[in-house]
Amino acid sequence: MSENDLSTFFNAKKIGIVGASNKFGKVGYDVVHNLSQFGYPGEIIPINPRDKEIQGYKAYKKLADYPGTIDLVFISIPPKYVNPIIDEMGELGIKHVVIITAGYKEVGVEGAQLERELGEKLKKYGIRCIGPNVVGILDAHTPLNGSFASRMPLKGNLGFISQSGALITGILDWSVNEGMGFSKFISVGNKLDIDETDLIEYLGEDDDTHAIMAYLESINKGPQFIDVCRKVSKKKPIVVIKSGASNAGARAASSHTGSLAGTNTAYNAAFEKAGVLRADTIQQLFDSAMAFSSQPLPKGNNVCIITNAGGPGIIATDASEFAGLNLAHMSADTMEELRKILPPAASVYNPIDVLGTGMSKEYDDTMRISLLDENVDMLLIIMTPQGMTEPVKTAQAIIDNHKRHPDKPIAAAYMGGVDLEEGAKLLKENGIPCFTFPERAISSLLGLYLYSEIQKMHLDLETTPVFDVDKERVAEIIESVINKGRVTMLGSEAIAVAEAYGITTPTTETCFTVNEAVKTANKIGYPIVMKITSPDIIHKTDIKGVVIGVKTDEDVKFEFTRMMDAARKFYPESRVIGVDIQAMSNVGREIIMGTSQDPQFGHLIMIGSGGVYANYTKDIQFGLAPLSDREAHKMFAGTKIHKILQGVRGEEPSDINTTVNTLLRISQLVTDFPEILELDINPLFVFDEGKGVSAVDVKITLDKERILRRE
Amino acid sequence: MSENDLSTFFNAKKIGIVGASNKFGKVGYDVVHNLSQFGYPGEIIPINPRDKEIQGYKAYKKLADYPGTIDLVFISIPPKYVNPIIDEMGELGIKHVVIITAGYKEVGVEGAQLERELGEKLKKYGIRCIGPNVVGILDAHTPLNGSFASRMPLKGNLGFISQSGALITGILDWSVNEGMGFSKFISVGNKLDIDETDLIEYLGEDDDTHAIMAYLESINKGPQFIDVCRKVSKKKPIVVIKSGASNAGARAASSHTGSLAGTNTAYNAAFEKAGVLRADTIQQLFDSAMAFSSQPLPKGNNVCIITNAGGPGIIATDASEFAGLNLAHMSADTMEELRKILPPAASVYNPIDVLGTGMSKEYDDTMRISLLDENVDMLLIIMTPQGMTEPVKTAQAIIDNHKRHPDKPIAAAYMGGVDLEEGAKLLKENGIPCFTFPERAISSLLGLYLYSEIQKMHLDLETTPVFDVDKERVAEIIESVINKGRVTMLGSEAIAVAEAYGITTPTTETCFTVNEAVKTANKIGYPIVMKITSPDIIHKTDIKGVVIGVKTDEDVKFEFTRMMDAARKFYPESRVIGVDIQAMSNVGREIIMGTSQDPQFGHLIMIGSGGVYANYTKDIQFGLAPLSDREAHKMFAGTKIHKILQGVRGEEPSDINTTVNTLLRISQLVTDFPEILELDINPLFVFDEGKGVSAVDVKITLDKERILRRE
Repeated sequence: MSENDLSTFFNAKKIGIVGASNKFGKVGYDVVHNLSQFGYPGEIIPINPRDKEIQGYKAYKKLADYPGTIDLVFISIPPKYVNPIIDEMGELGIKHVVIITAGYKEVGVEGAQLERELGEKLKKYGIRCIGPNVVGILDAHTPLNGSFASRMPLKGNLGFISQSGALITGILDWSVNEGMGFSKFISVGNKLDIDETDLIEYLGEDDDTHAIMAYLESINKGPQFIDVCRKVSKKKPIVVIKSGASNAGARAASSHTGSLAGTNTAYNAAFEKAGVLRADTIQQLFDSAMAFSSQPLPKGNNVCIITNAGGPGIIATDASEFAGLNLAHMSADTMEELRKILPPAASVYNPIDVLGTGMSKEYDDTMRISLLDENVDMLLIIMTPQGMTEPVKTAQAIIDNHKRHPDKPIAAAYMGGVDLEEGAKLLKENGIPCFTFPERAISSLLGLYLYSEIQKMHLDLETTPVFDVDKERVAEIIESVINKGRVTMLGSEAIAVAEAYGITTPTTETCFTVNEAVKTANKIGYPIVMKITSPDIIHKTDIKGVVIGVKTDEDVKFEFTRMMDAARKFYPESRVIGVDIQAMSNVGREIIMGTSQDPQFGHLIMIGSGGVYANYTKDIQFGLAPLSDREAHKMFAGTKIHKILQGVRGEEPSDINTTVNTLLRISQLVTDFPEILELDINPLFVFDEGKGVSAVDVKITLDKERILRRE
Repeated sequence: MSENDLSTFFNAKKIGIVGASNKFGKVGYDVVHNLSQFGYPGEIIPINPRDKEIQGYKAYKKLADYPGTIDLVFISIPPKYVNPIIDEMGELGIKHVVIITAGYKEVGVEGAQLERELGEKLKKYGIRCIGPNVVGILDAHTPLNGSFASRMPLKGNLGFISQSGALITGILDWSVNEGMGFSKFISVGNKLDIDETDLIEYLGEDDDTHAIMAYLESINKGPQFIDVCRKVSKKKPIVVIKSGASNAGARAASSHTGSLAGTNTAYNAAFEKAGVLRADTIQQLFDSAMAFSSQPLPKGNNVCIITNAGGPGIIATDASEFAGLNLAHMSADTMEELRKILPPAASVYNPIDVLGTGMSKEYDDTMRISLLDENVDMLLIIMTPQGMTEPVKTAQAIIDNHKRHPDKPIAAAYMGGVDLEEGAKLLKENGIPCFTFPERAISSLLGLYLYSEIQKMHLDLETTPVFDVDKERVAEIIESVINKGRVTMLGSEAIAVAEAYGITTPTTETCFTVNEAVKTANKIGYPIVMKITSPDIIHKTDIKGVVIGVKTDEDVKFEFTRMMDAARKFYPESRVIGVDIQAMSNVGREIIMGTSQDPQFGHLIMIGSGGVYANYTKDIQFGLAPLSDREAHKMFAGTKIHKILQGVRGEEPSDINTTVNTLLRISQLVTDFPEILELDINPLFVFDEGKGVSAVDVKITLDKERILRRE
């Protein structure tokens, strides 16, 4: 049993309940009652200092009084009494606890202190803990209802992890009505020890669980979450609804990447990297769940729609196209067969219209024929209540056809109320996702398709390219900047860092006097570029701090003085102000690249249209370091500028490969040096294919806190 | 009674049913049966050539046999027998018919011919017709169920117009379950006479109807639809789900505007102009409907969320912000009051958390206090099933609070199944929109807010500015182009048209010989711009057909020859090729403006980021001519380039007013000259504030078909 094997929580043979009670209304009453009433097959061991018997079970005053080995303990007593129980557990060698008790960090400073102490004790004894502040855990297979939720889920194969206890009680109540079956409901509460990453890893190995659903408000261990999900998502779909705007976005951000990244950017990038499907609404989460619980994955995105009414067929067509599904092109043979069995007025083109007169036979024949067509990857069956409609018989035909073709997913939209109720119920009972309106049915099929694409990517095997770089040189520059008491690099320093990582840059030197500037300009050779540089000046052009094509000593002198004066005027407090003298680069297409730090997930990387208006055109895509080759290409391909760089309007294509290569080098740089807080290259000039790129302006800021911590 | 007063359809005293039948399963059986069983209070007059009595009503062989005046006729006999009935009606002076019969243009050429003849007869006799190919019409107030749908809607105030008959039967069945009440269901079928525009106008005046819902696959009379909706939407909300990709988008489009406009662009622009809310899904349509049927409009977009669980509160907060609603900032007094009545652990900040222990009293007190806060425009009440939850008593408290504050809309999310069912039912019965998940509740409140904004705009009073322009000059140029057998204007002609409408342009003349070019260049004065011009060359830069800053006679000669050779090589079939000699304009910010024709709605107008990459950056907004001042400003403000033109990064602001003015002049131009098929200005240079604009490149194509029709 590895450290992360959490199976004891769900397979415990002997469960102690600290706080077990005979008093209706107490949580400790509910836990015993639920274990008992929902058929927990192991031993129920109530712990109560006063009562000798709890709900018919022999009670013990203390855990130590029980004459055997308890596997798992539930605790529902006030917080101040919890920590001594953990000590008891530690002494007895009990390694698993679910702490239902609330009143910890969620209520303020005192609770947070208690929780810290609790955490230390858990660590000390090596006790794994779910909670505190949870509804509990439920396993429909064991069965085990260790919670104060008053219902038991139907037995099924969906695992649901929720950071909101109320969502567990709500979804439990709702799911029974919907006929939706679950393997486990797990309330994670304050996630003091066990969190979503641990549970996803565990459910990934759990044979009872075929799909993992989660409601999350935060993610504890970003990088591990991604690693675990990349592995698990190869085997099972993971669908997450993430709520709450991240505070990260609120942090005043000075870089392009920081200010362009919205509060959701990092989570979206993380889910994409992790192979996690993100649901936008609770309904979408469970609509997908319904499909995942019983339907196979489609081979492609071609959907065939069978309907008894034109309008809803069009609605479903719109929804399919909008979602990125494709209306299957039926083969000529299929259409020929359909013509034989359908009335002449029926449409044999997809969406196939069996007409308002269509009875179960027409539906059945149409399904049978369509499912044989290899262009059809999945089916949507739409029914509206018409005079001759046979909702139940048609439902049976859908079920039978699905049995004959278990490799092609089917969903249904039974568009009505009373008239179609019985048929809809039959479908759900037999694992056919059935909805009132076609858009939701399409959304459930879409989930299957999107997951099939994730599975094909083999994220579990994906690697990051490693370039041969001068890591030592960068370490030296960073040391030197820190030693000078700065966190922001001067232009020439940042350029040198880029150079050390194999990114092409024009020669750049920072000068602090006029004479130095003239000398450097002559060494580099005219014409040159002059740029003001200072740790405090972010947008140089705003104070006219960039001059291109300076050609004479006189002009260098003039511009140097002008720039320094302007900078001192606008930034009188700045300790360092100099001028970068840079070799003139040819002008290429302007690209922006950058990185910023997300507190949960580490380095967020950006690429897009560059130039002075990059913040306004917002043609950008994000990813998380370290990037794989596929990820870097995909990010870039998601921008509009990528299309232009491919060569449009008679122009030569630009050097896309070197651009992606540069992005990957940046990814390696910030991964090697996590002390880089923010990095911006704007513009990166991209030249014609094979001609490379030039990073003419590089900004790097170091992470003060991380550096302080290091010292 | 005006020609468009359709009230006879719903208030007819005597209804004839041609095709009335005693045979169960026949549509003519259903119509008589439904009129009868659902309590139609007028006279039911079955027409049947054989039977003397139909379902207990005296039957007549022919309409003429009935000894009184029939107000309205339903027809459900095979199509080939329908037209003679119309003749009979004509002779008898019956002016209203609902033709349920199908088998017209929807089935092919023969049916289309029959439908044309039917249309002519209707016109000849001045008979107003709903259909053919409809389910029928239903009025819950009269009551009148003149349809073959087997259910009657609950009495309510929603009017539903549907181009899909099946959607009527489906929604009818579903709505009864949901407790949703309707005034009228109208199936419009093939819309041979009466269409959505007529019905929206009628329902706009119908006192029983408070909100108009529609499912449309097409719109018959685009401009009238917009006019009518602008008036009606001042009084009542109109919510439309429009399905089906328009064929207009498929037309090969050569202009920027044409190629940039997607299939939905014109419909979106039309709905925006018309003050119509567009629903994306059927569910959204009816979620809004539920709110409109019973809730008032909010004064603003500030929503207060009251919940008994944190997670769902966060989900609702996310949904609100995403939808553009604002979380109300509760006043200090309100929070103080809330602190008094809620437990210390409860959150008095919005979303207000009454905690899992919250009973109906806590909900009631919280609602009472929050509704008094003037920062609160609307309420969302969220309930999850917890141990002490009182779903029914809380529902009653919601209803009571709503009665005390009938000016503030309330929606509820009862997040559960069995446990909350009774409470949810009570809410719906009392007109409180209640959903399982909070996102849908927010969507229903959003509809109310969006409509309140539409109402405030006074679209019914909005006018279009009229500039003093040289209309005659444009008419002359168009005539001259037509006379030369062209539809595409040369650059100089298009520039002259723009000039005549007060749009600033640089002097431009088209030259066909080298000598002419040199002469013109000298007349205009060096430096000049040279551009190839031909009706067949769309993208000049693709063949290097634009040269800027030509300074000498020699250069003019050289470029003229080079350009003409290149053009003749790439466009050997072109009848006309010349070179435009143009005065050099200062370079400004590049804007694109253009127009294209939409077959339904007329001139679609576009504005956005210009330049050679306009087709790739796609920073554009669309509107429909004629534009009001508000519309033109709003379109421009929707682009990213607008933000840049306001002056960013220390730059001067650009001349936004003249840019908008130019857009309005274009709108006037294409409205005055509908024979303009497409117009593109790219780039329009925009200079600093007060310095105006310059339309340096103008393309105009005329509408061949319209010109041919004119001749």
